[in-house]
Amino acid sequence: MRTIEDGSYVLIVFGERKYLKKVKKGDSFSGKGGRIVYDDIIGQEFGIRKGEYLILKPTLEDTIMFGIRRETQIVYPKDASYICMKLDLKDGSKILEIGAGSGALTLAFSRACGPNGKVVSLEREKRHYINLKKNVEAFHEFENFEILLGDINDYTGGEFDASFIDVREPWIYMKKVWELLKPGGVLGTIVPTSNQISETLRSLKEGFGDIEVLEILQRKYKTVPERVRPLDRMVAHTGYLIFGRKIKG
Amino acid sequence: MRTIEDGSYVLIVFGERKYLKKVKKGDSFSGKGGRIVYDDIIGQEFGIRKGEYLILKPTLEDTIMFGIRRETQIVYPKDASYICMKLDLKDGSKILEIGAGSGALTLAFSRACGPNGKVVSLEREKRHYINLKKNVEAFHEFENFEILLGDINDYTGGEFDASFIDVREPWIYMKKVWELLKPGGVLGTIVPTSNQISETLRSLKEGFGDIEVLEILQRKYKTVPERVRPLDRMVAHTGYLIFGRKIKG
Amino acid sequence: MRTIEDGSYVLIVFGERKYLKKVKKGDSFSGKGGRIVYDDIIGQEFGIRKGEYLILKPTLEDTIMFGIRRETQIVYPKDASYICMKLDLKDGSKILEIGAGSGALTLAFSRACGPNGKVVSLEREKRHYINLKKNVEAFHEFENFEILLGDINDYTGGEFDASFIDVREPWIYMKKVWELLKPGGVLGTIVPTSNQISETLRSLKEGFGDIEVLEILQRKYKTVPERVRPLDRMVAHTGYLIFGRKIKG
Amino acid sequence: MRTIEDGSYVLIVFGERKYLKKVKKGDSFSGKGGRIVYDDIIGQEFGIRKGEYLILKPTLEDTIMFGIRRETQIVYPKDASYICMKLDLKDGSKILEIGAGSGALTLAFSRACGPNGKVVSLEREKRHYINLKKNVEAFHEFENFEILLGDINDYTGGEFDASFIDVREPWIYMKKVWELLKPGGVLGTIVPTSNQISETLRSLKEGFGDIEVLEILQRKYKTVPERVRPLDRMVAHTGYLIFGRKIKG
Repeated sequence: MRTIEDGSYVLIVFGERKYLKKVKKGDSFSGKGGRIVYDDIIGQEFGIRKGEYLILKPTLEDTIMFGIRRETQIVYPKDASYICMKLDLKDGSKILEIGAGSGALTLAFSRACGPNGKVVSLEREKRHYINLKKNVEAFHEFENFEILLGDINDYTGGEFDASFIDVREPWIYMKKVWELLKPGGVLGTIVPTSNQISETLRSLKEGFGDIEVLEILQRKYKTVPERVRPLDRMVAHTGYLIFGRKIKG
Repeated sequence: MRTIEDGSYVLIVFGERKYLKKVKKGDSFSGKGGRIVYDDIIGQEFGIRKGEYLILKPTLEDTIMFGIRRETQIVYPKDASYICMKLDLKDGSKILEIGAGSGALTLAFSRACGPNGKVVSLEREKRHYINLKKNVEAFHEFENFEILLGDINDYTGGEFDASFIDVREPWIYMKKVWELLKPGGVLGTIVPTSNQISETLRSLKEGFGDIEVLEILQRKYKTVPERVRPLDRMVAHTGYLIFGRKIKG
Repeated sequence: MRTIEDGSYVLIVFGERKYLKKVKKGDSFSGKGGRIVYDDIIGQEFGIRKGEYLILKPTLEDTIMFGIRRETQIVYPKDASYICMKLDLKDGSKILEIGAGSGALTLAFSRACGPNGKVVSLEREKRHYINLKKNVEAFHEFENFEILLGDINDYTGGEFDASFIDVREPWIYMKKVWELLKPGGVLGTIVPTSNQISETLRSLKEGFGDIEVLEILQRKYKTVPERVRPLDRMVAHTGYLIFGRKIKG
Repeated sequence: MRTIEDGSYVLIVFGERKYLKKVKKGDSFSGKGGRIVYDDIIGQEFGIRKGEYLILKPTLEDTIMFGIRRETQIVYPKDASYICMKLDLKDGSKILEIGAGSGALTLAFSRACGPNGKVVSLEREKRHYINLKKNVEAFHEFENFEILLGDINDYTGGEFDASFIDVREPWIYMKKVWELLKPGGVLGTIVPTSNQISETLRSLKEGFGDIEVLEILQRKYKTVPERVRPLDRMVAHTGYLIFGRKIKG
């Protein structure tokens, strides 16, 4: 799919500004760089200039940052990509996501688990579940996901290679997750505060090993060759990541 | 493959120390935590305790950090995972890697491109090419790669969704890479110095857009619940990452 | 001077918001936390509550951040304090400042050099010189400074223990500064870009030794005991600091 | 004191290596860059080359890093300088230091408080007290300090402009320190873990305002103009700094 079609998502770039839009026949886009009549770009290839704009095919990072509707704090791409690495996800992996929120990580998991994998995502709050489902259905790349409304304690599905928990109190789910993981399976969680790190670490003492706690920081630079320097401000904190492996016996 | 077999790679964990070993019938491992006779663990599941040790299935991160033989500076998992995200790799993607070194990134690309994708990796130095081939053949997960000895300027293959350059002077390959990328395709490179950022940015002025320069930093924490704190020292620099998209016209 | 007087500077704190004001008989302050009639606090000690506000004596950091009028990019307290350490300033030191801008660093130098020291600060731009003079005269703690309008190349004063340069092209002043420094004297400079680091390092090859390049980063945390976590965003870059020592022969 | 004398401290620099030594007539120094016979440099100015070495007058940072004998974890110059800024120390200030350890901070406080100020430093452990006293007596710049063996709860001295606590449980001293501080006086402390941040913040709820929690990070760079880049590794954590102001009523 290299050609912009009626219904395609496009990333419209104007300097530092980016807009992720769904192209619609007869419709148009207006931004700081002027107007784009969609009919003028339908049928053209991605990767073109249109007036002051660049028209690109959105990457998953673009989708997470500019595409999905956020009703909750999202997991940022810098974290999502490293989480997939730590959870060791690949085509064929089966992952259980608890507290899927707005679906940023669900989309990353769906991609990482590939056409032969499986993502089971639970969300307890009805309102967030509805938004999550919409986001994932709009932007998914593989038909490998199951979005469920409910609490993990009521879940009776099979064994998973990995699990990720993104809720306020991840420690209350550790026993249940342990049961649902294969031996050696990877557990991950993200918490905003160091108090939660303590509590989570305590809950991992039984049944988990190879524990790691870390942060991923991203520092962006200006792109002028004669004046290479970091941007003035940066995101200083998204969350602490905690990982462990299920140990039997 | 949940069971440890003759020939399986295993991660042996003793506190902070990790060893990645190939299990061999009749052989054994000796470390700070004592001896493991491999015959005792063959046939058992991964994710077990054996004396003072944990026996785990290596993740890709473990393989990159402890498995592959390093003859060159490797691309670290914190960078490799985010590079895959920025290059928008997924099952079916086709990527061109220039300067594959010891193959850390090649393994990450092979995983990300899945069973239906393709990784073409070039390495110019014979010595590194041989090591690269050994590493990828030992640890790959999908049969989707082609490891070539030679210079990209002699390469005549088809179009790629993305390309990554890890050589001292990435700027000398930009024109060739532009030709080999699909419109809108993502180009990435990693350079250790800011002087190289300047030079690379200059070479991207023609034909590329949506340029980004950034660093990924990883800060690790101790895992004692009552004493949550960062480790005393950290890796302060691996490389600056630069990304852009091929623009036509 | 523990008592708030007519003419005292006060720091008015309301949650995260801070205001630095000059108390005036008959006048008042109005902010998000309500109104303070100055006559009500004149004669009282610093360190009191007044309605929703705290009334504090401004520290030098408060003065730099909220007191001085900024016509140029200022040197932040996190950098200013470390610069004074590297320049080895103490009571009695004599420092030459080139490019004093709005005087943030001048105030830090004046404090560090104490009643027996001397700060000579040059500023070439008339407009900034006027503002600089106003700022330093309003907020200085010791009568140990000389604020000059002009270029360092026209300066004919004596020997200095240390010198700091904060101009766009610090390298053009290195020879002159070398002449004005005592042997072993410390030179410092701050530059926003890495291109300027390269240029500055080249200019230090002759006549300087023990060169260092570094950055100081400050990460702030929320102050809720149950939810300890970094603030969401931070200042990611102020400048690169470069230091060297004058070497004779 | 610009001339190297019998008994002077000198900083001997050989590339990245630094040695802080006391010059002694008839004695010599041997390092990676060869031998220095002290008689050859006595009478010469600081800031000279001697064979492969630079001979410099040690700065306070050099003294803290290479001069004092460390029996405890020291407060690093990057932190010490910013602590002095936050505590608003200047010539004439009077500070109370609780848990002075090896005296790194004591030396910084003594410098900051100048010839007219006063530093009262307490250390409870006899062994550390002896080392502290030796360090401060060897390297101090002003006769403005009092080193005491004992617990702060037994202390009956007068009012202080500022106080700094560096002990495992700073919260147990908050009430006593509050009594000893002038209204509006600044309190600071350093703790290695985030659990201690929580506990300290709780103890500051009564009687203190304008609370701040932060970290100072230092990132060093290589000094080759053509290859500007951060060092491979850095100190990732020294301590969390917490500050507050005494509020009356």
